[in-house]
Amino acid sequence: MVVSDPAFIAIDWGTTNRRAYAIGNDGTVIETIRDNKGVLSVLREDFARELAAIRTQLGDVPVLCAGMVGSTRGWTEAPYAPCPAGIDALVEGLVWVERGRTAIVPGVASHVGRGDVMRGEEVQLLGAVAAGLAPADALLCQPGTHCKWARMREGRIADFRTAMTGEIFSLLRQHSLLGDFLQDDVVDGPLFRDGLALAVENRLLSDLFGERAAVVLQLRDATDVASRVSGLLIGSDVREQAIRPEEAVYILADPLLGQLYATAIAAAEGRPVMVDSHTAFLAGITAIWDRINGR
Amino acid sequence: MVVSDPAFIAIDWGTTNRRAYAIGNDGTVIETIRDNKGVLSVLREDFARELAAIRTQLGDVPVLCAGMVGSTRGWTEAPYAPCPAGIDALVEGLVWVERGRTAIVPGVASHVGRGDVMRGEEVQLLGAVAAGLAPADALLCQPGTHCKWARMREGRIADFRTAMTGEIFSLLRQHSLLGDFLQDDVVDGPLFRDGLALAVENRLLSDLFGERAAVVLQLRDATDVASRVSGLLIGSDVREQAIRPEEAVYILADPLLGQLYATAIAAAEGRPVMVDSHTAFLAGITAIWDRINGR
Repeated sequence: MVVSDPAFIAIDWGTTNRRAYAIGNDGTVIETIRDNKGVLSVLREDFARELAAIRTQLGDVPVLCAGMVGSTRGWTEAPYAPCPAGIDALVEGLVWVERGRTAIVPGVASHVGRGDVMRGEEVQLLGAVAAGLAPADALLCQPGTHCKWARMREGRIADFRTAMTGEIFSLLRQHSLLGDFLQDDVVDGPLFRDGLALAVENRLLSDLFGERAAVVLQLRDATDVASRVSGLLIGSDVREQAIRPEEAVYILADPLLGQLYATAIAAAEGRPVMVDSHTAFLAGITAIWDRINGR
Repeated sequence: MVVSDPAFIAIDWGTTNRRAYAIGNDGTVIETIRDNKGVLSVLREDFARELAAIRTQLGDVPVLCAGMVGSTRGWTEAPYAPCPAGIDALVEGLVWVERGRTAIVPGVASHVGRGDVMRGEEVQLLGAVAAGLAPADALLCQPGTHCKWARMREGRIADFRTAMTGEIFSLLRQHSLLGDFLQDDVVDGPLFRDGLALAVENRLLSDLFGERAAVVLQLRDATDVASRVSGLLIGSDVREQAIRPEEAVYILADPLLGQLYATAIAAAEGRPVMVDSHTAFLAGITAIWDRINGR
């Protein structure tokens, strides 16, 4: 079997994880590396060596890096492109660590209202539209530690908001009084839906305590709490976005978390549409590559 | 100077702190011990020895203990008295570790709606009414790690809700992405009020992230965040309680935290009234003592 050389390497270099893709001239993925060498585990002076190791494995070709690698904690800071931001803005904002060889994709900043920032998600968002997985005018949702809600207009990121939903759940699980009750897996079932129903009442701070009280009073099993609290938090997150009835929400996430958000969005009368986030990333980074090369 | 013997000793024995009061026949405090020997730092088999040491210091008289000392993590479990609960219910629910010598005051449970529990706060609540510091029908608020909101009717605790406000602030300060920005003291000033105004928008999960984003984008100083986030959380807590316009809210708290809640309650069109929480505790525990003794 003859494996063709890749045209370029794309790296989705996040805080705790890293995915590197060798991408062929026709846009197909030739090879993938996935590991936990995220930005927090790499010293600033070691990024060049890390990249050399990836090139040894995937090919000695140009590299595009996206994600937290471009933050102040990463390799080289790539200043945020302001909203509205399309593929062109990301290409203009590329920071070349080595001219023509290695570039870092900028994050995107919103200055509307309170201000907001993203790094890495912008490639997925623009890629979802570029690949036709989401329309050019749409609401996109990227659940995770920090859940991004982005409004796309004419194929660009018009504005977005980030919710601390996943981080709050982790804090509660790891460090709070509720922690002992949050160790079970979250399941998209009746308990999760009960949590969603609770979220409608807009009493997050007191309903969180109520989950513990109900167990103490033996009104509920401790094993019920994780799914209920997840429903309460994700339900609150979705309610904060004021989705219009029947509005489509394009979800970019791993299937498990994506399904929880889909259920929450449907409960809020939105219409969830699942989009594969890896496909979206690849479409976005390939669109950047094509634009660099004048295509 | 002749110091009269106390009639009894009252101990407010919480999770992390303990206050013991030697109380005279006329209800005055003769002597106070305050230390950090809370329930979490005392082994179950050491409570009797701890109490003996207090008696050596304050007098060999009957003792009433309230607070987490009566929880499953404490000395002896004192089952919750159900709402509505007045002084009588606490007296009926006393658990005598040693008959006539040492008793533990029960907590109070609400089974209305979701269910809720308290331990220690009930003595303050009923004491505030017993001492005439709050009317027999009123809304009382006890800010803290877990903020209690109690509705009193005819001098009894009719129902209450607990909010995790203080614990969430601690979690954010100690363990979250926002932690670095939350180390400053919270001040009741314009920044705190900005946080209160933000709370009205009902977007807690996304507005928390926004505080960090605004600093990253240099739209705001990092030193502004602690007071703003405190305002956002306390404001959200107060909004969850749906206080009626001009409704009086009696606040039992230390002066600093009490002032923050007073500002938040006033911003929500309530009418805050500060009540000294130690005076309320002493009035409540003395009312229990009097009832035990048929007065």
